Amino acid sequence: MTGCPRHQPTLSTLNSSVPEAVAHTAVPKSESRDFMAVFPDVVRDLTAYASKYDKNVATKWFVKALQYNVPQGKKNRGLALVLAYRMLARPEELTPENIRRAQYLGWAIEMLHSMFLIMDDVMDGSVTRRGQPCWHTLDDVKLSGINDGLMIDSAIMHLIKAQYGSEPYYARLLELFNEMKFITTIGQSLDLRSAKLDVTDYTMDLYKSIVFHKTAYYTFYLPVAAAMHLTGYTDPEMFRQAKTILLEIGQFYQTQDDFFDCFGDPAVIGKVGTDIAEGKCSWLAVVAMQRATEEQKEVMKACYGSPDPEKIARVKKLYEQLGLPTTYSIYEEESYNMIKTHIQQISRGLPHELFFKIMEKIYRREA
Amino acid sequence: MTGCPRHQPTLSTLNSSVPEAVAHTAVPKSESRDFMAVFPDVVRDLTAYASKYDKNVATKWFVKALQYNVPQGKKNRGLALVLAYRMLARPEELTPENIRRAQYLGWAIEMLHSMFLIMDDVMDGSVTRRGQPCWHTLDDVKLSGINDGLMIDSAIMHLIKAQYGSEPYYARLLELFNEMKFITTIGQSLDLRSAKLDVTDYTMDLYKSIVFHKTAYYTFYLPVAAAMHLTGYTDPEMFRQAKTILLEIGQFYQTQDDFFDCFGDPAVIGKVGTDIAEGKCSWLAVVAMQRATEEQKEVMKACYGSPDPEKIARVKKLYEQLGLPTTYSIYEEESYNMIKTHIQQISRGLPHELFFKIMEKIYRREA
Repeated sequence: MTGCPRHQPTLSTLNSSVPEAVAHTAVPKSESRDFMAVFPDVVRDLTAYASKYDKNVATKWFVKALQYNVPQGKKNRGLALVLAYRMLARPEELTPENIRRAQYLGWAIEMLHSMFLIMDDVMDGSVTRRGQPCWHTLDDVKLSGINDGLMIDSAIMHLIKAQYGSEPYYARLLELFNEMKFITTIGQSLDLRSAKLDVTDYTMDLYKSIVFHKTAYYTFYLPVAAAMHLTGYTDPEMFRQAKTILLEIGQFYQTQDDFFDCFGDPAVIGKVGTDIAEGKCSWLAVVAMQRATEEQKEVMKACYGSPDPEKIARVKKLYEQLGLPTTYSIYEEESYNMIKTHIQQISRGLPHELFFKIMEKIYRREA
Repeated sequence: MTGCPRHQPTLSTLNSSVPEAVAHTAVPKSESRDFMAVFPDVVRDLTAYASKYDKNVATKWFVKALQYNVPQGKKNRGLALVLAYRMLARPEELTPENIRRAQYLGWAIEMLHSMFLIMDDVMDGSVTRRGQPCWHTLDDVKLSGINDGLMIDSAIMHLIKAQYGSEPYYARLLELFNEMKFITTIGQSLDLRSAKLDVTDYTMDLYKSIVFHKTAYYTFYLPVAAAMHLTGYTDPEMFRQAKTILLEIGQFYQTQDDFFDCFGDPAVIGKVGTDIAEGKCSWLAVVAMQRATEEQKEVMKACYGSPDPEKIARVKKLYEQLGLPTTYSIYEEESYNMIKTHIQQISRGLPHELFFKIMEKIYRREA
């Protein structure tokens, strides 16, 4: 791999020597701080909205649910919207007020993301999220957290109406958020249903379908498509071109995640991987099944999806025997080149730089 | 009560002699049949929608979730929309195609209702619903039913877009559904939070707030307000007047439900009441606490919210000692008269007959 011509310092995530300061250049720290500074306004607005109906118990609880769940993550999705807005808007549009409105909409995406995390954690019985106990594990929450997820979700539409209700693209924006929500539930359903399959049934097609729908649409396409609406794009072909590339980036993002889950340093990625124990339809499992001999397939069948540490170690050893770290490294390189080519092929006036920025952010990440 | 002047046969639900054929006159059986006949089209349309993203596992599962959960109930909400549409539309608008579109939107309300039932049943750990096992109790569903609820919910917006996407009131219709969803989660939150209160903290204000938000808005206001949009109403004052009356009707509906829960005939209402055992903030509990002596309050405190049959019987006896059946009967009469007066005060051209029809349907019901 090291023989390949490169414009950038080594891309491969196998090489963990990229310093932290270089690893996250697409969105500067100040952007993240500015974004956080808008959150209290979002909460104040939503408090006023809920107070129209209940001035006490329910509104206080709603605020608590928002504050506990929404701002704790990396905020990549919300920040991607702001980044895209900055790059798509004409210079004269980049007023503080317009940027604030874009940040506001970024929080709407973060709320959608939070809702999915709350619900997923209930469904998976997870206990920690973003370094704190999952919402549903709190004594006065439990399964009633489902309703809190629904509240946060419903409130998204209010935010959009409050900021963009009189814009010509208002209905398109509502539809976009809703379509992304539906698609994500399709992906979640595929994921939940395929969890009942045997590892021998995993295919690359199934893997891609889960990843596109469960993650890529709302994580990568939604922020950019929302910013496109905000800046006046209406050509469906432009949205289609953006979608193609962003779903590819999303797929790479998830594959990287799957690789880190098994081969990443827990100290760096912040968690211990569980994909093998849980029998997930991960990129590694799919490629392993593609390459395995009948004998190796029997090992996968016998060991994959078990919490037994010996079986987990056996699967990991098999991955290494099959050369998956190298395959991943090649995939990473090829995927980077393919996406680069696709970005360069964008023909309808979308700035290539936007997609390169988003891609750089993903390819350079360490966790 | 029997001495009161009446235009109608006795209204009181204490008198169970109203024959079944008379008890449900507002919506004829044929209307319900016609409404059901549209459901396969709704499913076909939603299948095509989901198939854009997944042609197999997730779409098949989605269809299964729709068919298991959506059409099993009484369909009162969907039928109320069709009834309201028929009464608000101009005669020349009442084409088969327009009625079909109204029925279609009626199914959108039924889907919203189904989503809430799926989620409620998970949160409450309920085991049966509409005469069949709750969705989440099925072996291949369990907590993944939460995602199915989200899928059904997201698909509502698609139905609205498919039928009304090019209408001038399209965005208002989306907002209406979403606002109702948010309000319902507020009511659900109030209900869940107040379940942690002591019976001594129950007040009529809390009761009304739960009932308005958790039930009345989406059950009574939503169908009529949706039909108003469909038929071109835009005057906010008309929506306000309709809302006032429909929330009053909704409150009566819930109070009646609470009364049946304790004093209804299980053979007629189709279930055995559980409000006392579960310590619900019911109309009977609130009125009992208003009227109880200190000694009687102690009985409530000691017995309310326990599954012990002796304690349940003690509470029921206390309700009788406090004369609650008579109080209910008086409340029923007064509430009927108050709503009648409010309907007659409608000043902005909404047909009084629509509200009388909805009210009749509630007041005459036996279960």
